[in-house]
Amino acid sequence: MTKPLNIPARSLPVPDTVSTGMQALIAAPLRAGWNNFPSTPEGWRALAEAGRKAAAPNVAAMAERLGVKVESGTIGGVRVHTVTPAAIAPENRNRTLVQIHGGCYVLNPGEAGLTEALLIAAFGGFKVVAVDYRMPPEAYFPAALDDAVTVWQAVAAGGDPRRIGLIGTSAGGALVLAMGLRAKQLGLPMPGAIASGTPMSDITKTGDSFYTNAMIDNVLVSTDGFCDAAARFYANGHDLADPLLSPVYGDMTGFPPVILTTGTRDLLLSNTVRVHRKLRGLGIAADLHVYEGQSHGHYGRDDRNPETAEAFGEIAAFFKAHLAG
Amino acid sequence: MTKPLNIPARSLPVPDTVSTGMQALIAAPLRAGWNNFPSTPEGWRALAEAGRKAAAPNVAAMAERLGVKVESGTIGGVRVHTVTPAAIAPENRNRTLVQIHGGCYVLNPGEAGLTEALLIAAFGGFKVVAVDYRMPPEAYFPAALDDAVTVWQAVAAGGDPRRIGLIGTSAGGALVLAMGLRAKQLGLPMPGAIASGTPMSDITKTGDSFYTNAMIDNVLVSTDGFCDAAARFYANGHDLADPLLSPVYGDMTGFPPVILTTGTRDLLLSNTVRVHRKLRGLGIAADLHVYEGQSHGHYGRDDRNPETAEAFGEIAAFFKAHLAG
Repeated sequence: MTKPLNIPARSLPVPDTVSTGMQALIAAPLRAGWNNFPSTPEGWRALAEAGRKAAAPNVAAMAERLGVKVESGTIGGVRVHTVTPAAIAPENRNRTLVQIHGGCYVLNPGEAGLTEALLIAAFGGFKVVAVDYRMPPEAYFPAALDDAVTVWQAVAAGGDPRRIGLIGTSAGGALVLAMGLRAKQLGLPMPGAIASGTPMSDITKTGDSFYTNAMIDNVLVSTDGFCDAAARFYANGHDLADPLLSPVYGDMTGFPPVILTTGTRDLLLSNTVRVHRKLRGLGIAADLHVYEGQSHGHYGRDDRNPETAEAFGEIAAFFKAHLAG
Repeated sequence: MTKPLNIPARSLPVPDTVSTGMQALIAAPLRAGWNNFPSTPEGWRALAEAGRKAAAPNVAAMAERLGVKVESGTIGGVRVHTVTPAAIAPENRNRTLVQIHGGCYVLNPGEAGLTEALLIAAFGGFKVVAVDYRMPPEAYFPAALDDAVTVWQAVAAGGDPRRIGLIGTSAGGALVLAMGLRAKQLGLPMPGAIASGTPMSDITKTGDSFYTNAMIDNVLVSTDGFCDAAARFYANGHDLADPLLSPVYGDMTGFPPVILTTGTRDLLLSNTVRVHRKLRGLGIAADLHVYEGQSHGHYGRDDRNPETAEAFGEIAAFFKAHLAG
């Protein structure tokens, strides 16, 4: 048996090693309601809807600033948004990204889930199909994964599957990994590359940064907070260690190249680096990018922060290097 | 002005996401004497000598287990150890690594500085020249750097400079970066690749993980501990922000590929990822590897830990991919 390490109370300054925009995100107080979350399906639905309404004007303003076009529709019966940049880069003419939003499997319906799609469309010059997958209480595990796979397969149909890239953050970062695992189960071809941002790769409360970065990450705050509760709501009694819910436990043999993104204050730092190590142990091309001082998903918050251009520039370059032309 | 974030006291369990050997390193108490260090030159010398004596049997046992040969000598008047593995890999026949040990510029003289050289020789099949550079009170900044450059240039003389790799951890991780900066000042050709492990890339107390991982990293413990004090002893009044002391502030344009290694509990996590970002911003091939739960330099402690084989396997593969043949 090993003894725990006792850490005294302390006070963390806001780092001056990041942009002023990022300093503002880091200086924000702990997310309101991080430890005060709904206990009923309707409560979760109301929280998601309130979040969507609050996000909508910000998402619209971001789309406007970035000059990208958003069209709503359905593919295979699944709600999607197709995001088109002002100019598709010539080398990306035959490529499409499928984007799976985050939000702990419960939050960010509709346009609230579009931020990452807007950013990679604009910074990378890609056409992006964003999957507005079903979430509880509308539908439970594995509905989100099923919807994501449905859209991916429809987008990939008839073309070179390696021209398709998958991108997602948080729950979406886990889902893009689970899509690779599901493809193996179903005998489907792999995508050309995967961008997994700070993935919820382990929802069993396992991973050292759940402890080291507790109360430091001002977005997720704690593994005892809203996000793990939301993931359990999605899992709906299913084994949380199932690799389709906690993909770090899956067999990633045969995966395409993967780029992983996280921050030094991220509650999911460990669950990002554990996936990186797992992929590298299999000899898979896998790049890790860790951003100074950032909590969960900070790199994708605001297109005006230089760290956002930097992170999405890395992801775009990775897709351009690894997707078939 | 931004408000600091107040973190409550808490207790960190030892992660079960690492090997049992690594768990033992993580479970160790904070380093004895981390905040109780010498105040005189003779005190530092005595501390270094005591550390050398304590390390010597462990280093000898590691060399024995790994089947590597160690020969002492001098190159250009600088003390070195030449480390030869049981078998030099065929592709490494014309390659040599120059290894610069860590120890906050003051510790790990003689055989105590050899651990990393033994590991990369054995796990990579490389011939390694380990530089036993002068340390205070024998000599102060920039003596360590001068000695490292002297040996490097002698080893490289007459051959393809891109066949030489530089490797170092901690102070050595900073020195291998400073060697690149110094080479630019002196008009010398770059090495073929650099492995910088958890570099002391910024000794001005700047970097977010100096705060987030304070009292969590059980090796360095705090920026107010022995290591920063030792670095100031080496700097001897010189500006700590000089890029030859804090290489994160240097212009790394023209650097060869760099591999960076750190851990999620590392006090120097930020100062590792900041170098990675800086290199990537210049378009330099730079790979980052962050190991779960590890404090400063844990990956290089014990050849019997699988994480050590993993980390040195990555570094060896990086050298093999990037050094000229």
